[in-house]
Amino acid sequence: MEVYMDNSATTMPYDEVCDTVADAMKNFYANPSSLHNLGKYAEDEIQKARKFIAKMINASEDEIYFTSGGTESDNIAMLGYALKNRKRGNKIITTKAEHPAVLECCKHLESVGFDVFYADILPNGEADSDAILNQVDENTVLVSVMHVNNETGAIMPIEKIASAIKMKNPNCAFFTDAVQSFGKIKIDVEKAKIDMLSASAHKIGGPNGIGFIYIRKKTRIESPIFGGGQENGIRSGTHNVAGILGFAKACEIKQKSMQSDCERLKEVKKIIAECVRNLSHTRINSPQSGLEYILNVSFTGLKSEVILHVLESNGIFVSSGSACSSRKTHISHVLAAMGIDKKSAEGAIRFSFSARNTAEEAEYVAQVLKKEIPVLQKTVNLK
Amino acid sequence: MEVYMDNSATTMPYDEVCDTVADAMKNFYANPSSLHNLGKYAEDEIQKARKFIAKMINASEDEIYFTSGGTESDNIAMLGYALKNRKRGNKIITTKAEHPAVLECCKHLESVGFDVFYADILPNGEADSDAILNQVDENTVLVSVMHVNNETGAIMPIEKIASAIKMKNPNCAFFTDAVQSFGKIKIDVEKAKIDMLSASAHKIGGPNGIGFIYIRKKTRIESPIFGGGQENGIRSGTHNVAGILGFAKACEIKQKSMQSDCERLKEVKKIIAECVRNLSHTRINSPQSGLEYILNVSFTGLKSEVILHVLESNGIFVSSGSACSSRKTHISHVLAAMGIDKKSAEGAIRFSFSARNTAEEAEYVAQVLKKEIPVLQKTVNLK
Repeated sequence: MEVYMDNSATTMPYDEVCDTVADAMKNFYANPSSLHNLGKYAEDEIQKARKFIAKMINASEDEIYFTSGGTESDNIAMLGYALKNRKRGNKIITTKAEHPAVLECCKHLESVGFDVFYADILPNGEADSDAILNQVDENTVLVSVMHVNNETGAIMPIEKIASAIKMKNPNCAFFTDAVQSFGKIKIDVEKAKIDMLSASAHKIGGPNGIGFIYIRKKTRIESPIFGGGQENGIRSGTHNVAGILGFAKACEIKQKSMQSDCERLKEVKKIIAECVRNLSHTRINSPQSGLEYILNVSFTGLKSEVILHVLESNGIFVSSGSACSSRKTHISHVLAAMGIDKKSAEGAIRFSFSARNTAEEAEYVAQVLKKEIPVLQKTVNLK
Repeated sequence: MEVYMDNSATTMPYDEVCDTVADAMKNFYANPSSLHNLGKYAEDEIQKARKFIAKMINASEDEIYFTSGGTESDNIAMLGYALKNRKRGNKIITTKAEHPAVLECCKHLESVGFDVFYADILPNGEADSDAILNQVDENTVLVSVMHVNNETGAIMPIEKIASAIKMKNPNCAFFTDAVQSFGKIKIDVEKAKIDMLSASAHKIGGPNGIGFIYIRKKTRIESPIFGGGQENGIRSGTHNVAGILGFAKACEIKQKSMQSDCERLKEVKKIIAECVRNLSHTRINSPQSGLEYILNVSFTGLKSEVILHVLESNGIFVSSGSACSSRKTHISHVLAAMGIDKKSAEGAIRFSFSARNTAEEAEYVAQVLKKEIPVLQKTVNLK
């Protein structure tokens, strides 16, 4: 049996998405910026995709800008907003559990004079909303809190945070990196008072190399990407029509199956979590209330890489944390922020699910863990 | 008959490229940064692609960094190099005929204190190498000259320029935007003393949303994109494996057919050029020695948009200049830099070819021009 449970790194695209991409490459190949009809047909298709995606998050279509993916969207939001609105203040607030695409932008902004506050993470993996709110002052231009953490699946209280920020400083913008949540749980940018939101296609069965950023009307941004001025100046570069249409196809599918996928994955997650709980020297790092798509667990005293390879030899593909950070094998900054001890963090494994995963697969994973983990544990000195 | 001659805007991908992309989406879907074997398989495929592309331009594989396209590559080169090497000097030299992706980066660099010199363009469309060289001094950090102009097809004397620069200031880097030349004519980064080079897949029958930047070893760059550190820190963001493999497939095909495509397109270009020359009130804006893939002509006294739509009604799809600048319909900055009068510039049409175009198509275009242009000319007052 082959079980792919590294879907927060990337998903296998839906068959319909592959077909849409191949079809678009052949039939909507023209440059949407071209003035002739072939360009216009491509442009029309993009607009349909934009409209569909906008509706999914209760935005209007002129608030959606296609990008090359989550990292680029995060860069546009963080750098594009902070640098443009510097006159309003130079303080930025974020959390210690953000994705490197946000954290590295923060580091860069610090290097050019911004003051960045990194809020602690609660032991259950959630953002400490009080710590964030306490920091908001009139000098704060931007608060950036991810929607769902990519390592633990913790759902951050963004709605609560955004509302409270706006009460304290109506000029402060709120950005959320929704790369792990978009298409998986309902997002309403109006209700949640989100000013900017980033999303990626390949985390929900769409193609790689395509994402979007939602930017609320009247939000002042100066894009950090310079060029032909496509996407209303937010993202220069020839449109990736096939990528955009593939993304929209994945959105269509996910919107229909969002609820049923969550219900099924709740079961998938539960099966593996119960198995882990029944083993000795383990801990569940994902919060009880976390997203159904991610289960992070620790086998204290074992090494992630060793477990990963044993699972792999049984046809199970998972991650030792986040694959987004380009094969870096240090201890997870997210688990560290949660206060998880080094020994447990070193034995962390992330199971991350997609629409394709089944309870049958979960049962198989549980069987393998039950068989293999005690064997591994015998090879080390567990106190 | 349907004739697509807007290939410098974007090409219809090769059928084999569409197949490669669809296949890669299904079979190499894992994240190359994942530590398991599925990730490794994807990584191996990327490395093969990187090796192939490196060899094409006589680079080594660790000098090739995949990006989301030409614009991003240009941004990495211009911003990434200039900002990192500021201590060496703050003067940049470029030409007035560069793509907006380079020109807009220059404007941004000016806004942060760089001194940018925009060299004139010769009446034949080529860069004025003397004007460039005269400006090189010890304060010059970067010279950026495109390889082939996207509107006229003029081939810039980059080899001559790069060598002369290095003689005058060995610390000055040379960057060339090769988006319109890569895969169409032979490039040797060693022989041409190029330090950085940008290229795009969709201009040569590859997929949209993928490109690369060549960066010579030991060239100091600080990427303007922040995140997980993929591509050795030059381009953060999950790899677009299918895009990369599709790009490599297009490269393979182009490398084999580079010579024969050029020979065939020489004929295609000649047929249309001769027809235009035989019409009254016209001029050929592309230099005699320009790239076979582009023919820019002016119908003085007519409006580009009108001609474009008449051609379209005959099934011929061309551009009124560059489609890269997102439907801007002002007069071309390239033709203006060449000193072409406003009336001629307003009636400019760019025919741009791909491997798919044939002499038969060119004959058809010539027929249509011969029939339609005199009719249009009767509707206006031509002196």
